Amino acid sequence: MNITIINGPNLNLLGIREPGIYGNEGFESFLTRLRNKYSDITIEYFQSNHEGDIIDKLHEAGFGKTDGIVLNAGAYTHTSLAIADAIAAINTPVIEVHISNVHSREEIRHRSMISGVCRGVIAGFGLDSYRLAIEAFVK
Amino acid sequence: MNITIINGPNLNLLGIREPGIYGNEGFESFLTRLRNKYSDITIEYFQSNHEGDIIDKLHEAGFGKTDGIVLNAGAYTHTSLAIADAIAAINTPVIEVHISNVHSREEIRHRSMISGVCRGVIAGFGLDSYRLAIEAFVK
Amino acid sequence: MNITIINGPNLNLLGIREPGIYGNEGFESFLTRLRNKYSDITIEYFQSNHEGDIIDKLHEAGFGKTDGIVLNAGAYTHTSLAIADAIAAINTPVIEVHISNVHSREEIRHRSMISGVCRGVIAGFGLDSYRLAIEAFVK
Amino acid sequence: MNITIINGPNLNLLGIREPGIYGNEGFESFLTRLRNKYSDITIEYFQSNHEGDIIDKLHEAGFGKTDGIVLNAGAYTHTSLAIADAIAAINTPVIEVHISNVHSREEIRHRSMISGVCRGVIAGFGLDSYRLAIEAFVK
Amino acid sequence: MNITIINGPNLNLLGIREPGIYGNEGFESFLTRLRNKYSDITIEYFQSNHEGDIIDKLHEAGFGKTDGIVLNAGAYTHTSLAIADAIAAINTPVIEVHISNVHSREEIRHRSMISGVCRGVIAGFGLDSYRLAIEAFVK
Amino acid sequence: MNITIINGPNLNLLGIREPGIYGNEGFESFLTRLRNKYSDITIEYFQSNHEGDIIDKLHEAGFGKTDGIVLNAGAYTHTSLAIADAIAAINTPVIEVHISNVHSREEIRHRSMISGVCRGVIAGFGLDSYRLAIEAFVK
Amino acid sequence: MNITIINGPNLNLLGIREPGIYGNEGFESFLTRLRNKYSDITIEYFQSNHEGDIIDKLHEAGFGKTDGIVLNAGAYTHTSLAIADAIAAINTPVIEVHISNVHSREEIRHRSMISGVCRGVIAGFGLDSYRLAIEAFVK
Amino acid sequence: MNITIINGPNLNLLGIREPGIYGNEGFESFLTRLRNKYSDITIEYFQSNHEGDIIDKLHEAGFGKTDGIVLNAGAYTHTSLAIADAIAAINTPVIEVHISNVHSREEIRHRSMISGVCRGVIAGFGLDSYRLAIEAFVK
Amino acid sequence: MNITIINGPNLNLLGIREPGIYGNEGFESFLTRLRNKYSDITIEYFQSNHEGDIIDKLHEAGFGKTDGIVLNAGAYTHTSLAIADAIAAINTPVIEVHISNVHSREEIRHRSMISGVCRGVIAGFGLDSYRLAIEAFVK
Amino acid sequence: MNITIINGPNLNLLGIREPGIYGNEGFESFLTRLRNKYSDITIEYFQSNHEGDIIDKLHEAGFGKTDGIVLNAGAYTHTSLAIADAIAAINTPVIEVHISNVHSREEIRHRSMISGVCRGVIAGFGLDSYRLAIEAFVK
Amino acid sequence: MNITIINGPNLNLLGIREPGIYGNEGFESFLTRLRNKYSDITIEYFQSNHEGDIIDKLHEAGFGKTDGIVLNAGAYTHTSLAIADAIAAINTPVIEVHISNVHSREEIRHRSMISGVCRGVIAGFGLDSYRLAIEAFVK
Amino acid sequence: MNITIINGPNLNLLGIREPGIYGNEGFESFLTRLRNKYSDITIEYFQSNHEGDIIDKLHEAGFGKTDGIVLNAGAYTHTSLAIADAIAAINTPVIEVHISNVHSREEIRHRSMISGVCRGVIAGFGLDSYRLAIEAFVK
Repeated sequence: MNITIINGPNLNLLGIREPGIYGNEGFESFLTRLRNKYSDITIEYFQSNHEGDIIDKLHEAGFGKTDGIVLNAGAYTHTSLAIADAIAAINTPVIEVHISNVHSREEIRHRSMISGVCRGVIAGFGLDSYRLAIEAFVK
Repeated sequence: MNITIINGPNLNLLGIREPGIYGNEGFESFLTRLRNKYSDITIEYFQSNHEGDIIDKLHEAGFGKTDGIVLNAGAYTHTSLAIADAIAAINTPVIEVHISNVHSREEIRHRSMISGVCRGVIAGFGLDSYRLAIEAFVK
Repeated sequence: MNITIINGPNLNLLGIREPGIYGNEGFESFLTRLRNKYSDITIEYFQSNHEGDIIDKLHEAGFGKTDGIVLNAGAYTHTSLAIADAIAAINTPVIEVHISNVHSREEIRHRSMISGVCRGVIAGFGLDSYRLAIEAFVK
Repeated sequence: MNITIINGPNLNLLGIREPGIYGNEGFESFLTRLRNKYSDITIEYFQSNHEGDIIDKLHEAGFGKTDGIVLNAGAYTHTSLAIADAIAAINTPVIEVHISNVHSREEIRHRSMISGVCRGVIAGFGLDSYRLAIEAFVK
Repeated sequence: MNITIINGPNLNLLGIREPGIYGNEGFESFLTRLRNKYSDITIEYFQSNHEGDIIDKLHEAGFGKTDGIVLNAGAYTHTSLAIADAIAAINTPVIEVHISNVHSREEIRHRSMISGVCRGVIAGFGLDSYRLAIEAFVK
Repeated sequence: MNITIINGPNLNLLGIREPGIYGNEGFESFLTRLRNKYSDITIEYFQSNHEGDIIDKLHEAGFGKTDGIVLNAGAYTHTSLAIADAIAAINTPVIEVHISNVHSREEIRHRSMISGVCRGVIAGFGLDSYRLAIEAFVK
Repeated sequence: MNITIINGPNLNLLGIREPGIYGNEGFESFLTRLRNKYSDITIEYFQSNHEGDIIDKLHEAGFGKTDGIVLNAGAYTHTSLAIADAIAAINTPVIEVHISNVHSREEIRHRSMISGVCRGVIAGFGLDSYRLAIEAFVK
Repeated sequence: MNITIINGPNLNLLGIREPGIYGNEGFESFLTRLRNKYSDITIEYFQSNHEGDIIDKLHEAGFGKTDGIVLNAGAYTHTSLAIADAIAAINTPVIEVHISNVHSREEIRHRSMISGVCRGVIAGFGLDSYRLAIEAFVK
Repeated sequence: MNITIINGPNLNLLGIREPGIYGNEGFESFLTRLRNKYSDITIEYFQSNHEGDIIDKLHEAGFGKTDGIVLNAGAYTHTSLAIADAIAAINTPVIEVHISNVHSREEIRHRSMISGVCRGVIAGFGLDSYRLAIEAFVK
Repeated sequence: MNITIINGPNLNLLGIREPGIYGNEGFESFLTRLRNKYSDITIEYFQSNHEGDIIDKLHEAGFGKTDGIVLNAGAYTHTSLAIADAIAAINTPVIEVHISNVHSREEIRHRSMISGVCRGVIAGFGLDSYRLAIEAFVK
Repeated sequence: MNITIINGPNLNLLGIREPGIYGNEGFESFLTRLRNKYSDITIEYFQSNHEGDIIDKLHEAGFGKTDGIVLNAGAYTHTSLAIADAIAAINTPVIEVHISNVHSREEIRHRSMISGVCRGVIAGFGLDSYRLAIEAFVK
Repeated sequence: MNITIINGPNLNLLGIREPGIYGNEGFESFLTRLRNKYSDITIEYFQSNHEGDIIDKLHEAGFGKTDGIVLNAGAYTHTSLAIADAIAAINTPVIEVHISNVHSREEIRHRSMISGVCRGVIAGFGLDSYRLAIEAFVK
């Protein structure tokens, strides 16, 4: 099974940026633990601050050998119709994840442009949100 | 570990009602499978169509021995500030779950009154949403 | 033919409450006249001030022997998505009725949460609205 | 007893236009059946695609010998304040009818400019909505 | 000097319709008095319930010998962009008048589609609003 | 003089729930002090988390021997049109009270569905809000 | 007959400020011409940039010997509920005037806080708006 | 091939009205050129300022021998749900055209009531918009 | 104990203005009764129609010897952010009072700019609202 | 004559993605046919999923030898003010095109950020929309 | 060079009021430092809590010898159209300043009534905002 | 001291694009003058039309040796939550600048997504806005 994790803008700063909201573990170290736990799954990882890169990657994964995509689109979650279109255009299922509970933050983060075209949404469990998404695909 | 699952209005009809949206397995049969899988967890189950009953149950669980609550408040998710207040009033963490992806349904189901006071949200994975919530608590 | 009439909150006060808006005949006396007129129809009657009771009753009637439901959900018409879900979940057709013309009252009474999932709407004819609903079912 | 039925824009196409929504019986044939059923009532019929014609007709009927008006204002229901003013200006009672359940169609059809000045509203019963309106007047 | 008074929908009912709002003098008798007072001005009068007729008349007057137009567009004031376009398209100045004070009536009558393209607005003085408009032109 | 105090959802948790907002005295102990202070007034007390129970109680008190009702409808203040209807339906005057200053909390708590049909509103004085309401009735 | 003209903020700059909008005649010179024309009317004049002064003046005129008030409240027209209250509190009729056609200016100037409590509105005729208001009182 | 061009309100003034926006060629002269260019197409032309006439014409063309309709509904584009219904009711495809780029004009002209039921939209190319619509049908 | 009562615009007209809403007792006579009742409290009184005067007075009282301020800001309640800032800037607690139940009046009076920065709100008890505010301070 | 066609996000998937909406011809094969038809026009083609790349290309074309730009900005049409600014900044005229009729899709696609600064808009004709845009430039 | 600094409501409390937001230096001491630094500029200072005083001062400065005005209108920034009109009416350029970053405070402080008619805006630099405004004038 | 100036989309066109709004000096020549004036400050300059590049640069500067960032995010100011997140994530203070007074331009430019997380805002002084920002940092 092949799963691609895509992280959007500012998520390269995990472990550095606002640890009160995002925790203080970097994504790379978390990824190692995740790969160990799900050793029979190939987990590809991609991060970019560019909306266009995320679309390109969704196309590549969506028409490649990926069985499922775990997407944390960061702030683009709330503003990007283009990413929503990319998700709708591919057949590979996408699960939207968020580290923090976006609903207990500012108003603008309560609306997601992409939830409607994703298979499901998981938010608020810290980095464990990513693991739960993989659990959902395994199922 | 003790977990209470609370289901809100119309969820007693699972397996009967609109299978295209909610699937055709009744909740009881799913519950049996869930308890088998997580045999070391005591899973209590409660369903009611009454907003007040759900509040009463949240109080009971929230001041009792429950370690975590999995709540699918059904349509009350979108209209009940009183349930949100009950969740905020108790210390036991609550995870909000939905069977369907509420974000690909009508506009009114995109807004949740309770997400902001829950620990996290899991939506769109069918009955598996409940299992993922338990996974999140186990973690 | 079996028809169930369900009356929502404050409609137990008919004949007492604000006669300028709701008339001064109690519902029981009207019901007797209605049953006399449609003597070949079994008309069941149920009233509650509880949103949950109305949902329970809709389930019971919707999965029982009722051929049609006449529902005056009172103020819940304008606030209850859960009742709307219950109507959508059952197969028995539901006709929404109102005694007063809700559209000539306050703004909040112009929006109905349930009209879209009902077969039709009849409003503004006093208690005769209920008779017209039965006429519609007879047809 | 004299009743005038007024049909607004596009209702001349009944039986031709979108039968999935409006059914496939033309209004003329329905009218014949209606007049047969209520043989002691004189039923006048008028249709126009012109907002102004409908206002003219409301004036004529409202200051003539008509005892009641059954009005399906079609799309003007949702945009015409002038028709609403005409209804308010005459003493003859007007009942608003709709063939389809406007509330389960697009957002713009949920708001009526005229409901507030009509005696009552009947919507969603196909052509039978007109008969129910006559029933209401007979009463 | 030539002035054309154009009255819109339902204003043919003046003196009959809702005298509490519109007074009980018919427009014809008022017009006679007005013509007597301003005997050196040719006052043409036109009334229609049809939006299109009002546009046709505005074109006719606007490209004819009329020096000024006094327009009471009735309910079309609040809904007709097409009449606004007609006013903008002609060079003859138009003064918007209202018999009642539209601002102390329902919300929808507080917004005018046409005020912005008229020379000025006079509202709330009963039939005297028309005289004041003529005074303004005389000036 | 007979006064009924009605407390709505989550107010059974007073003294336990969020003491920073609601204080740490339970309602029962406060009630004892209140009854001592106003020994010539019979003060009945009722609490429920159920919207329907509150409506039932308002009817009972409103058509019984109660001279005044002090109502803290909790979160239902902001969502329940049905409770507003119940207040409007009875003759007994109702005073709306709140322990906290709802206007310095979230936006949704700034709008009250029931204030308009109550005699008056008292908010922000802790449990003393109830005493002030009784003072107002005494007057 | 006694008439008081009240001018609000920035209207002391007439003849100086933005002549393209307001013309280039000062109010004093216009006032002289107006008094000459209506020599049998006592016209008092008051201008202030202070909202409170305008309220004080409305009270004074409203409970004094003034038969009518002509009010150009300037920008306070669109923001002052307190002036609206003052107009409603007095018995002397008030006519709202504007020099420019406020409806062809910015959105915020389309809404008037005070029109609803004035007898009528005259806007867009330059300084002649004041004369027309006096004409309306004379009538 | 038969094509019907329908022009709405105020478009009879083309070449006269606001040439800065609409150009200074009258529609008749343009039509001659168009017919010359597409000599194998029968181009019918109809203009009216009446909403109802446009609906009547759409019905006539839609159930006649017309292969395609080019509609410039003028200001009715933005306000007429009835014309939208007429377009939806007929099978003949309709192309919406505008002479000016409506999107660079006032806010109210940015919303079209009819675009959603037309086959396509062409706006902003002056009278050439009509030719492009015919090109689209030819294709 | 020193308490300052501040009354805002138009409240100088109490007893004169709209007695249906505000009662017919002047504030001075009420004040005498109030001072008699609370003879151990020094009650200062201030009224102005000027927003700036009210701010000045709040500063003076807020940095003087006043223990509590009772403020009826009249219409400024709904429009003055500057008064809200003044209340927030001083340490002396302020109680907002209203004579009428503002919530059963027009929409614009349902929103208060100042409630959020006051200690509490008392509305709807006629002049007794002021006494209740003093009761609240005494406590 | 030199024309540049710019395609935005997800349009690289044409022929693959959702053929029900976008058709099943790839853009490259269409482009060949287009170049054959307009053999005297040099048609450059550019596609990117990156907002910034589209802006860069607009600058390059806008200050280069391009006579006209045909832009299908995809989802950026509805969210990118920066692309709108780029169009406004260059002198080369831009025609906005869409393959599908965006107005019969979701609400968010009804608003265009860029239409107001384009010369014109062509939408709903499948790939033929691009040809019509070139026709418009040829003219 | 003559510059006038105008401070609006509550700014007389600088150094006393909410030092967390506004700092703890009084304006007078800051002014001394400012005058020392810009010894060749005559800096006049004016503060008032009265909207009308600020308008009066703007007129005086705007038609006097002032070369530039630095205006911190405090809360009137967000509510006063009359001050905006005064700024538009004078020729002297006005720079809007704020001590705090109003955009990171409550929603209502994000909208400015006056920014559009000022030359520029400087916000968020504490008292240094005033110095930067003078820098801008010097330039 | 190290300061980084970041310019967003279309600002590479300064001196070329719409000189009426942005002036006709290119940024490079302005930068030379700025560096000469502040010779003891190292001023780095970066421009991109790509939202992602701006985020990358903010990260680089925010975790590098930059003491302050001057950001003109162009149109992204009004749409990019991701840039706002990047600013919030870094510790280096950011000052938002605009060349034109965005508040006197279109509505959409009045709302800034980023102002709330910047230290301050300076707008409307042409290229001098950048210098004032540096002045603010120097302070």
